[in-house]
Amino acid sequence: MSAPVYNRVALIGLGLIASSMFWAMKRAGLAGEVTGYARSAETRDTARRIGLCDRVCDSAAEAAEGADLVVLCVPVGAMGAVVQDIESVLKPGATVSDVGSVKAHVIEAVAPHIPDGVHFVPAHPLAGTEHSGPEAGFAELFDNRWSLLVPVEGTDPDAVQRLRDLWEGMGANVDEMDADHHDLVLAVTSHAPHLIAYTMVGVADDLRRVTDSEVIKYSAAGFRDFTRIAASDPTMWRDVFLTNKDATLEILGRFTEELFALQRAIRTGDGEHLHQYFTRTRAIRRGIIEAGQDTDAPDFGRAKKT
Amino acid sequence: MSAPVYNRVALIGLGLIASSMFWAMKRAGLAGEVTGYARSAETRDTARRIGLCDRVCDSAAEAAEGADLVVLCVPVGAMGAVVQDIESVLKPGATVSDVGSVKAHVIEAVAPHIPDGVHFVPAHPLAGTEHSGPEAGFAELFDNRWSLLVPVEGTDPDAVQRLRDLWEGMGANVDEMDADHHDLVLAVTSHAPHLIAYTMVGVADDLRRVTDSEVIKYSAAGFRDFTRIAASDPTMWRDVFLTNKDATLEILGRFTEELFALQRAIRTGDGEHLHQYFTRTRAIRRGIIEAGQDTDAPDFGRAKKT
Repeated sequence: MSAPVYNRVALIGLGLIASSMFWAMKRAGLAGEVTGYARSAETRDTARRIGLCDRVCDSAAEAAEGADLVVLCVPVGAMGAVVQDIESVLKPGATVSDVGSVKAHVIEAVAPHIPDGVHFVPAHPLAGTEHSGPEAGFAELFDNRWSLLVPVEGTDPDAVQRLRDLWEGMGANVDEMDADHHDLVLAVTSHAPHLIAYTMVGVADDLRRVTDSEVIKYSAAGFRDFTRIAASDPTMWRDVFLTNKDATLEILGRFTEELFALQRAIRTGDGEHLHQYFTRTRAIRRGIIEAGQDTDAPDFGRAKKT
Repeated sequence: MSAPVYNRVALIGLGLIASSMFWAMKRAGLAGEVTGYARSAETRDTARRIGLCDRVCDSAAEAAEGADLVVLCVPVGAMGAVVQDIESVLKPGATVSDVGSVKAHVIEAVAPHIPDGVHFVPAHPLAGTEHSGPEAGFAELFDNRWSLLVPVEGTDPDAVQRLRDLWEGMGANVDEMDADHHDLVLAVTSHAPHLIAYTMVGVADDLRRVTDSEVIKYSAAGFRDFTRIAASDPTMWRDVFLTNKDATLEILGRFTEELFALQRAIRTGDGEHLHQYFTRTRAIRRGIIEAGQDTDAPDFGRAKKT
């Protein structure tokens, strides 16, 4: 058990990330009291039933009042509205953070509403599953994953360090980078791959000459890995693409260019080009396993489960 | 233990699929003796060392001679050459099969070399991992996966039934379909997804403003699922694309069209279009889990392992 890093933490929004944060904070004793708020009454009821948060409040302001740390865990497009609900109750010396997948837009939407004397330290934990909602969370979600802190210029270093302590206490590794670089890195590692997976699943669903039941039965041949990604929360992802537009479109442009080159190699029968390309991509996979960001078990270990 | 389905089985090529077939046949006692051959002396040595095959032979003809079933487990582009090495030793009443991911091309390359009195029943097990080689195989690989039989017109029904018994004995479900439909279904569920994954991994590697080490560290945000697919055997996949050219290019054309529509929605800020699209793709994922072709464990269950 660590000493609490914050006496009072408020989680605004109670989905996969917030609920995992709650269980991870409890696991390590990182917070004295954790309050929570979700816009939907059904989510609040679920949270109360499963013991998610020490106190579930009926407004964001009630949850945030008196908190030492307020974490905005809502879709990126809702951050601006939420901070306006709580700005008047934030206590001096408190820190506001978030867990949004896009950083420049969140800073633009949230920073103007942070009162003097309150710190704002944007963050983004690179962890998740294809499940969403308050019951999807678990304490181990952040273990050995990266959480990126994106402090704006002039932020109090002590406030940044304290948030770093919290994330490390929840099991994560922490890096800092600026917002624009964050948004480009995430466009490559997350946003473009998600859009591509959504697209491929949509194509399979549309194709009239192959039935959905064939697609589903024969998915183990590669397709199912795409469907896992494409099952992620639609609202969250809509907001990501709308708010990280430029970087995502840039990467998709590169992707299309490269795909056309490979299509051309297929059409012209250029086996050498294909073989070289496929050999190069294997090395990246090896790097990911060595960096501890995935398992080397064949088929993620699921092949041996029946 | 079932009774042996074939007295003598020969496996030509000793990679992931052949080695898994060997262990799966041994598990259920489906074959009296299994011989094996691989072109590389190193692979044959490895096979002898790990006990893969009852007898490892130094030529394909030696392995195939006297066999009741000969299974071609080499890359699709090598099938035609391999069958020419063994056609003179095939015994009357024997069955030749294969495990290639493309069927029309394999039939075209192999069928002309099948002697009178020998059966030819092409097959394709939809199972695999990102690992390859003789040491990558395991007996459970085919459990609850689909194996597709693609018999050519006029094939002896008893020969088809016997091969079906073998695959079912190795744990697989079996379906039959014709070669052109197989190649289209696989273009959707496997070939196009693989090419797309290879492309995305190549783009990430190429991008100068994001380092490889950033891509690797932050891959858990979605990208790593692509890298697993893109780590598959380069020779096998080169051959797949070159021999299933038309269906793959057709699906990639549909994919590009759909991707452009989504890019346009991002550019114009059409959140409704994105949200609807992402909601629709979730249903397919549900179907795959209900069909038993994947686990519902979050993040394939790897999130809880540290």
